[in-house]
This record gives sequence, C-alpha cells and structure tokens, in this order.
Amino acid sequence: MREIIECMPNFSTSDPVVVEAILNEIRRVKNAYLLDHTYDNYYNRLVVSYIGNKNSVFTAALNSATKAIELIDMNKHKGQHPRIGAVDVVPFIPIKNVTIKDCVHLAKKFGETLAKRCNIPVYLYGKAASNPERSDLDWIRLGEHEKLQEMLKKPERKPDFGPPFPHPTAGATITGARKVMVGFNVNLGTPDIRIAKRIAKALHSKKGGLVFVKAMATKIPEKNITQIGTSISDFEKTPLYRVFELIKIEAERYGVPVIGSEFCGLAPLRAITDATGYYLKIDAFDEDRILEVAVQKAVEKGRGESG
Amino acid sequence: MREIIECMPNFSTSDPVVVEAILNEIRRVKNAYLLDHTYDNYYNRLVVSYIGNKNSVFTAALNSATKAIELIDMNKHKGQHPRIGAVDVVPFIPIKNVTIKDCVHLAKKFGETLAKRCNIPVYLYGKAASNPERSDLDWIRLGEHEKLQEMLKKPERKPDFGPPFPHPTAGATITGARKVMVGFNVNLGTPDIRIAKRIAKALHSKKGGLVFVKAMATKIPEKNITQIGTSISDFEKTPLYRVFELIKIEAERYGVPVIGSEFCGLAPLRAITDATGYYLKIDAFDEDRILEVAVQKAVEKGRGESG
Repeated sequence: MREIIECMPNFSTSDPVVVEAILNEIRRVKNAYLLDHTYDNYYNRLVVSYIGNKNSVFTAALNSATKAIELIDMNKHKGQHPRIGAVDVVPFIPIKNVTIKDCVHLAKKFGETLAKRCNIPVYLYGKAASNPERSDLDWIRLGEHEKLQEMLKKPERKPDFGPPFPHPTAGATITGARKVMVGFNVNLGTPDIRIAKRIAKALHSKKGGLVFVKAMATKIPEKNITQIGTSISDFEKTPLYRVFELIKIEAERYGVPVIGSEFCGLAPLRAITDATGYYLKIDAFDEDRILEVAVQKAVEKGRGESG
Repeated sequence: MREIIECMPNFSTSDPVVVEAILNEIRRVKNAYLLDHTYDNYYNRLVVSYIGNKNSVFTAALNSATKAIELIDMNKHKGQHPRIGAVDVVPFIPIKNVTIKDCVHLAKKFGETLAKRCNIPVYLYGKAASNPERSDLDWIRLGEHEKLQEMLKKPERKPDFGPPFPHPTAGATITGARKVMVGFNVNLGTPDIRIAKRIAKALHSKKGGLVFVKAMATKIPEKNITQIGTSISDFEKTPLYRVFELIKIEAERYGVPVIGSEFCGLAPLRAITDATGYYLKIDAFDEDRILEVAVQKAVEKGRGESG
C-alpha cells in the first residue's frame, strides 16, 4: 500500500452480535484491513483499529458507522466510559505517506457525509476542530449522552454538521484527526473505586498530573478490582514507563498493588523500545537496533533496487 | 527477498581502516545487506551483521574473511574477548524461509572453501559441529590464539577442514549455524575487575548461573568501569530481564550500581516485548499487539491478495 491511514472508531456496544455486524462492514471493504478490536462489558464499548488508503478507510468508516447507528440504542446504554453516541468517536490517524492534513480532510468529508446520510449531529475534534476548545474530546462529551439534547441547544455546542438535536437512538458523533496515541490500562489490587479515582486524578493532565495524559478510574466487577484507564496523546514526550511508575507511586500511598496492565488497542513500537530502554538502562535505544526492523528496511531497500 | 539468512562474523580488529576494508567486501556483494557493525578497542573485536540469500551470504562471508586474513596479524593482537583467529567465528542464522539445516550446509561449504583458499584450519561449531563437545565455542577457543599450535596437535582438536597447524598470521577460524541469540552488555559502576568477574561467574551457565547464558567480565579503561558481557542462546526461555535483574542482584552484594546497558548487535523484537511485558506487568504481551507489526502483516496480506 502506497498510503496508509489508520481509523480507530469507538462504538457504544459490547453486544457480540452488534460487534460482528460492525466488523463485517469493515471486512467487506476492498483494501481495508482490520488490525484489532477489543470490547468488554464494564466499558460497554467497542474499540476497532483498521487501516487502508483514503478511499477504503472512508468507505469502511461510513458503512460501519451507518450499521452502528442502525443497531445501537443509546437510550438503553450504560457504560463507565464517557460517550455521547452510538458511534462515539471516529479518529483518522496518518501512518505512512499521508499527512495530518489529509486526515483532517477525510474527517470533515466523513462527518459531513454521515450527518447527511443519518441525520445525526457531528462534531469535529483534534486537529480537525473548528476552534481550540473543540480539539478536546472531554469538552465535547460534557454532559454525555444523557444531557445531549440540552447541550446541543447552547450556541457554543452547535454541531459542525447535521441537526442541532440528537439522533433519537444514536445521539451524536465526534470525528477528527490525531497522531498515534497510546491507550494503556493498569489494574489495581483493590475494589475501592474511591482510591482508583484519586490515583486517576493524580495522573490526569488537567488535575496536576502528567501533561499528555488523560486518566479515568473504572470498576471491573467480575474480578473485584479497579482499573486506571489512561490515554497518552504524546508518548514520545510523556513515555509509557513514566505513566506506569507514577501510578505505582500513587498507589503505594494506599498500600494498593499494581497487579497488571494491558494496551487498549495496539502499541506503537517506539513506546515499547522507550520502556525497554528505561528499565534496562539502555541509552537512546532506537527502533533501528531491532533485528526485525533492520531486516525489513534492508528488504525494502533490496526491493527498491531490484524494481 | 524470498529467503533470508543472517551472517554475524566476529573479526579480531578495531582498526578503522581494516574495519572499512572488511565491510566493503560485504557491501559490494549484490543482494547482501549490512544491518549493523560494532567495534571497540577494549574488546579489540569487530562484530558485523548482514543478511542475504544463500548465494550472496556465502560470497560476502568468503570475501570478507579472505580480506580479514590478509590484513589482520594475530601475533600483534590483544583483546579481552577470547579468540583463536583473525576471522574468529562466522555463524549463519536462519531468519526467513530457511532452515537451520540450510545454515549448517552453508557453514560447511564456507569452512571447506575458506580452508582451501587460505590454507587455514577451520572448526565447525553449534548445529554444524561434528561432535557434541565442538558445539561449544568456549571449548574450541580453549588456549586461545596463543596456544593454538599446541592445541591443534591434540587428536581431539583436529580441525574439520584445513591443515593441523595455525595460519601464520590469522590463526584459525570457527564457523557454524545457530539460532538468533541476544548479546547484551551491562556496565558496572566499579573499576574493580575482581568484582565484575564474580558477578559474571554468578551468571554463567557452567558456573551455577542461568542455563542459556554465557557471561564474561571486561575492563573499560577509558570510562574507569567494568562490564559484564553476556550472550543468551535461548532468549525465549531465559529472557533478557531475568539476566539483567540477576546482575543487579549480584552487584548489590558489593554495593556496585548497574549504570547502563547496550545490545551487542541487534536485538530480536521478542526480547524487547518480553522485557516490556515483565516490567509493565502485561500478561503474555505478544508482538502482534505492536502497531507496526500489525500494519506490516496487513500490508503483506494486501500484497498477496492483489498479486
């Protein structure tokens, strides 16, 4: 593939039948490739990752969103993650031979087309935002789906596309463009959500924490534990290990152990090499020092020379 | 490239002019690609990594070895790493669409050809060894270059190819086939080589340490520190973090800090994901969870479908 864009939509469902219907809309698009999907009933949220070129990613985004709007009823939705609609957020991410501007353009085209097709309000966020306030997902999600009707009436909350009232079952949608992010969840050995909330607060950029980090506390009832869900918007400047070690330090105050972690979505290689470099005390450990990366580059060079 | 073999020869030099002459012999071979090379004067040793198909790797191995034999005089060589010759060891490693048997075949062909061409004794080691004792580099290197003449006279030390006496300036050569290994050096905040030796001993498989680990102590005079050089022959069973943490634990007894680490050669991705998984407490962290790996697999799948 000459150009590669990643799309990482979040849908408000954890119903396996609905999940499959959404994934199938992506699978059946030529030149679109599913990389990953995760969902669970405590977030009640499906996070999908797929790649393609501009055309295939656009078609897959539109078809999967239309299917989700058809199948998900937000009036019945409960979940611990903030959300305003069935197709809560659809970010486009540049991966190869594509600029962030291309992704902004794609997000606007997607937002406009979806709003028309499904008569749903659509907000632009991130690099596609129409003003600085709107670049922040939290600001757009204020009041969540429950207060959406009321919020949409405020002039400053006018959607970028579509009607100024919620879709009857699917609420509203947010789309935009952003760089690759890290989603990282850390499990705490306590069922006490108040402790988890204090730790999340200590991490969150808006509450005195690390500058590129958002953090939230979640209960995982079936394991009788809690979880700090983090997203790191610039993992090169605020590396993963710093987030992890700070959670450990904050948890120690309460005598709470960190019992495990997981990536939410895929992990960028740079986040992994930075973590390895930190813990093994390797100075400036670079991706090019990885055998598979060096082999891949040599193979591509060879292909270029022979072609 | 359909088939990929890595060759990782070790030459007994740190003279930049000789290093360049050797590297050029590899660079000028079609379909052979240099991945990496490192050398320093305390080991007085050049470690090169390159890939290619069977033919190009064979040609590059032969030409670079011939050049090194021409330029390096072992009678003047001093270095902290055990060695028996100018072209000390030439391992062939299967990477893609190649078996270890193919690499054994290649090593034998290389050894036989080099022995004839340069009239130098050649030993086979690793998976190419003619008996179990010879699979071990340490056993073959016993007495090093200094006692090579005497050792070559013993019936059990008869070379696999070439004459039973050393090459006058280049000593002897070892070649063979092995799996991908990890070379990992850990710097200690002490100039005391006796402490470093005790720590290396504690790690070494033959002295009560970790089963797939060899470890040696080295002085780094220009930094006034010492180093534990390790090689891990099966890094999936004895992961990197276990080696690193054990060095830290052994160093603590002497109040010696671990001040840094480096890979000797390239690091396999699996070693990096295992380390990240351990330190960040991620259960069964898999390479497929890395964005770049998932994208590459999707691209290859796409290429397969369109071709």
